[in-house]
Amino acid sequence: MRIVLKIQYDGTNYCGWQIQPNGNTVQEEIERAIEKITGEKCSVTASGRTDSGVHALSQVAHFDTNSAIPPEKFYSALNAVLPNDIKILSSGEADENFHARFSAKRKTYEYKIYIGEFPLPLKDRYAARVVTALDVKKMDEAAKMLVGKHDFKCFLAANSSVKDTVREIYRSSVAEKDGYIIYTVTGNGFLYNMIRIIAGTLVKVGQGKFSLSEVDEMLVAKSRALAGATMPAKGLTLISVEYENKEK
Amino acid sequence: MRIVLKIQYDGTNYCGWQIQPNGNTVQEEIERAIEKITGEKCSVTASGRTDSGVHALSQVAHFDTNSAIPPEKFYSALNAVLPNDIKILSSGEADENFHARFSAKRKTYEYKIYIGEFPLPLKDRYAARVVTALDVKKMDEAAKMLVGKHDFKCFLAANSSVKDTVREIYRSSVAEKDGYIIYTVTGNGFLYNMIRIIAGTLVKVGQGKFSLSEVDEMLVAKSRALAGATMPAKGLTLISVEYENKEK
Repeated sequence: MRIVLKIQYDGTNYCGWQIQPNGNTVQEEIERAIEKITGEKCSVTASGRTDSGVHALSQVAHFDTNSAIPPEKFYSALNAVLPNDIKILSSGEADENFHARFSAKRKTYEYKIYIGEFPLPLKDRYAARVVTALDVKKMDEAAKMLVGKHDFKCFLAANSSVKDTVREIYRSSVAEKDGYIIYTVTGNGFLYNMIRIIAGTLVKVGQGKFSLSEVDEMLVAKSRALAGATMPAKGLTLISVEYENKEK
Repeated sequence: MRIVLKIQYDGTNYCGWQIQPNGNTVQEEIERAIEKITGEKCSVTASGRTDSGVHALSQVAHFDTNSAIPPEKFYSALNAVLPNDIKILSSGEADENFHARFSAKRKTYEYKIYIGEFPLPLKDRYAARVVTALDVKKMDEAAKMLVGKHDFKCFLAANSSVKDTVREIYRSSVAEKDGYIIYTVTGNGFLYNMIRIIAGTLVKVGQGKFSLSEVDEMLVAKSRALAGATMPAKGLTLISVEYENKEK
């Protein structure tokens, strides 16, 4: 039976989603928890990897099991053995053809920024700090230029070997809320480090270091060197994953 | 010269403000940082102690120094040596008669609650969890009954030996915001554990286990046994301290 999970995690103390030879990962914690409650070794597949230090409000993953635990009870059995920084929000039976990664249609991420001369203890865990003031309206204009189907090669980590760098973005906007500047982006998929590089590019727009036409040029030129720096992982949170027009 | 500091801290990893024989405290970290930058051993006095695990958005403290560092530069010198979960928001010269504790006129605290069957990784650091739904309107009505000058003995930790248990509360209200239920209280001072016991009492009101008249009765009877449980420290944050009608 295929089980689908919705998962929330604080990524601070993990080396990302995917199992690594060194360092603890979210996938490893969940697979260990499943083994504890079912006695079965299994492999859990997420909608996508999140990097070291990235958080998830609602990640989606699936695994197969022969356990007699009712699908809708898995979340509570797993939560009893999971650490407090990883919890299963819900569980249920999935169609045999459901695949957390390949069936995913849209993902939404948030990148949170705050302005500060030094790290603010009550903001620094889930947001990245920028020292100078930012023009949020300009950042929002630049963000909206990314909506649509584009080759996002300029926002791909330089060390990646991915071939197909075309993605479609449905929403891309920047707004101020409760003392944070928040970049929200929804797309059919994202390249490695793409959102963190977009965030770094938008920060430069907000500082007046990039004009809107320069953002346009980097999309056309497809050169990573033209875009902004990769912003820190801790500001990034996977908000939701959608499947077949409805959230799983 | 007397220096006044505004301090923000994440209390999670500290045994509260005040120096303890065992366990690291915020006061100790700040005194150590002052010694590092001035070479002087000194004693830092806060507006009040915060308990183990309690956070501060803006605590106020003072200390005396012979250092030649300009008062308004202290914050940045201290931040360079302080850990990331304690930072000085601002520093300045204070009047010789200024005393962070005795000159304080009003303090504001927030107690944050969220509803959850299990701990939510992205909420659990700065808020306390309650399993069952709460009637926020009823909680707000009960909270407002506490405004005014009252003997708050019923909300004093049972092991305290404090004699004068009369305090004046200027604001006391409950509201829902961004998925949290937030109790905000401003007063001229608070007894040991008072806000956490009030929060526990308001939770029982929200669950329908206490009526408004029962809250009235516990104030009259002055008995700790009649009030609710002491809620966890992590939900409590010192928001601000006011002096002589203006915030320091």
